[in-house]
Amino acid sequence: MTKPLTLTPISGIPLIQPGDDLAKIILQALAQAGISLEDGDVLVVTSKIVSKAEDRLVNLAQVTPSSRAMQLATQTGKDPHLVELILRESSQVLRIGSGVIIVEHRLGFVCANAGIDHSNVQQPGWVLLLPENPDASARALRRRLETASGARLGVLVVDSHGRAWRMGTVGTTIGLSGLPGLVDLRGRPDLFDFRLQITQVGASDELAAAASLVMGQAAEGNPLVHVRGFPYPSREASLGELLRPQDQDLFR
Amino acid sequence: MTKPLTLTPISGIPLIQPGDDLAKIILQALAQAGISLEDGDVLVVTSKIVSKAEDRLVNLAQVTPSSRAMQLATQTGKDPHLVELILRESSQVLRIGSGVIIVEHRLGFVCANAGIDHSNVQQPGWVLLLPENPDASARALRRRLETASGARLGVLVVDSHGRAWRMGTVGTTIGLSGLPGLVDLRGRPDLFDFRLQITQVGASDELAAAASLVMGQAAEGNPLVHVRGFPYPSREASLGELLRPQDQDLFR
Repeated sequence: MTKPLTLTPISGIPLIQPGDDLAKIILQALAQAGISLEDGDVLVVTSKIVSKAEDRLVNLAQVTPSSRAMQLATQTGKDPHLVELILRESSQVLRIGSGVIIVEHRLGFVCANAGIDHSNVQQPGWVLLLPENPDASARALRRRLETASGARLGVLVVDSHGRAWRMGTVGTTIGLSGLPGLVDLRGRPDLFDFRLQITQVGASDELAAAASLVMGQAAEGNPLVHVRGFPYPSREASLGELLRPQDQDLFR
Repeated sequence: MTKPLTLTPISGIPLIQPGDDLAKIILQALAQAGISLEDGDVLVVTSKIVSKAEDRLVNLAQVTPSSRAMQLATQTGKDPHLVELILRESSQVLRIGSGVIIVEHRLGFVCANAGIDHSNVQQPGWVLLLPENPDASARALRRRLETASGARLGVLVVDSHGRAWRMGTVGTTIGLSGLPGLVDLRGRPDLFDFRLQITQVGASDELAAAASLVMGQAAEGNPLVHVRGFPYPSREASLGELLRPQDQDLFR
């Protein structure tokens, strides 16, 4: 009845370089931390280490801004090379603010500046794009970790996103495998045997937020979190189930 | 370095009735669960048990709909009495969809149907409003629990909210005391000694989402979660710090 949910930040992940074998590095870090994987465990990784291993680094000097990027750069006070990358990574610009461009990312979610990161990148003038296909990254990582451990696992790739209406970023799903994104509780009885009116729960987003709490953000950050006690059964899933179709979205 | 975050759902909370002494009930449930409170622990409670203890139940038959409520009821297919309550609990209607009214709640956050709940309410025809002042509820509860335990604690009152752009509800802060809502990491060095560009983190919202994962939603739900290992230092706080000022919000 009272099964706890435990999130353990894993230290000992070295700086990831393009081409690094992330599965192997994760298994080593878990072994060092004395954790042996069990059925139902979930591993949460930041998009940053997945992107670095997949060599999603771009040298801004080698990006030629389009005229639209030049114009948006003037409007927002942002680097035109960066704006060009934001546009290439996006399917739609939704809002333009001071220093921020809110887009629908080509992966389907809404975020600021297409999730392009220029902190935690070693070379000045370079930036880091989100993984090409975070669901596929999660699936591949899960397969490797399951084969090595013999356990049935989930893998969740997360990024920090801002939100409408509220201050502060929260950890958010950008790719997943082996755990549900959305859990449908509709039709279950409530305490007094009425049918619940809500409820689809953004379960992997709740877990992404939880993991972000212990990842930290800066120099002391842990890019990997081990989760035991995730309460919903394993299944195949993809980011798409968490994305509200545009025609049902009152806030586009 | 690798301090885990542990969230333990506490069973054994009885059905809460108006006037119940919530602090006493929580202390009993924790004792039954064998948990003794320590400095830095956080207790997360659903708004529902706070509302019930504070007698925020309303009989819909005793609410007289205004003409505006009648009109919105026709537009949305909702009960006009319920719509009247939604309007009374709100400072602004932001969007109207099929079966849903998105408002700025009088407490300042944006949510669907003013957070009024008609599941988990014992009497048919009655609904449950959110607490009158969830920050004050959290403060009062914290004071009682600290006095009884001698430990320095945080108390977080949460509700499940829908989101722009994404499917699924997530646990969200509606009141807090003794833990930060928003944590400002701006100016901290990143891995390579640049200054971080982001970041204000919605720390208590990340914790609210984490706790919701283990609360469940329906008959088997646990309205209380004990948290050990919340990574940010205690301070006084209020919901206001998590609310984006309207003039900085691109999605109103």
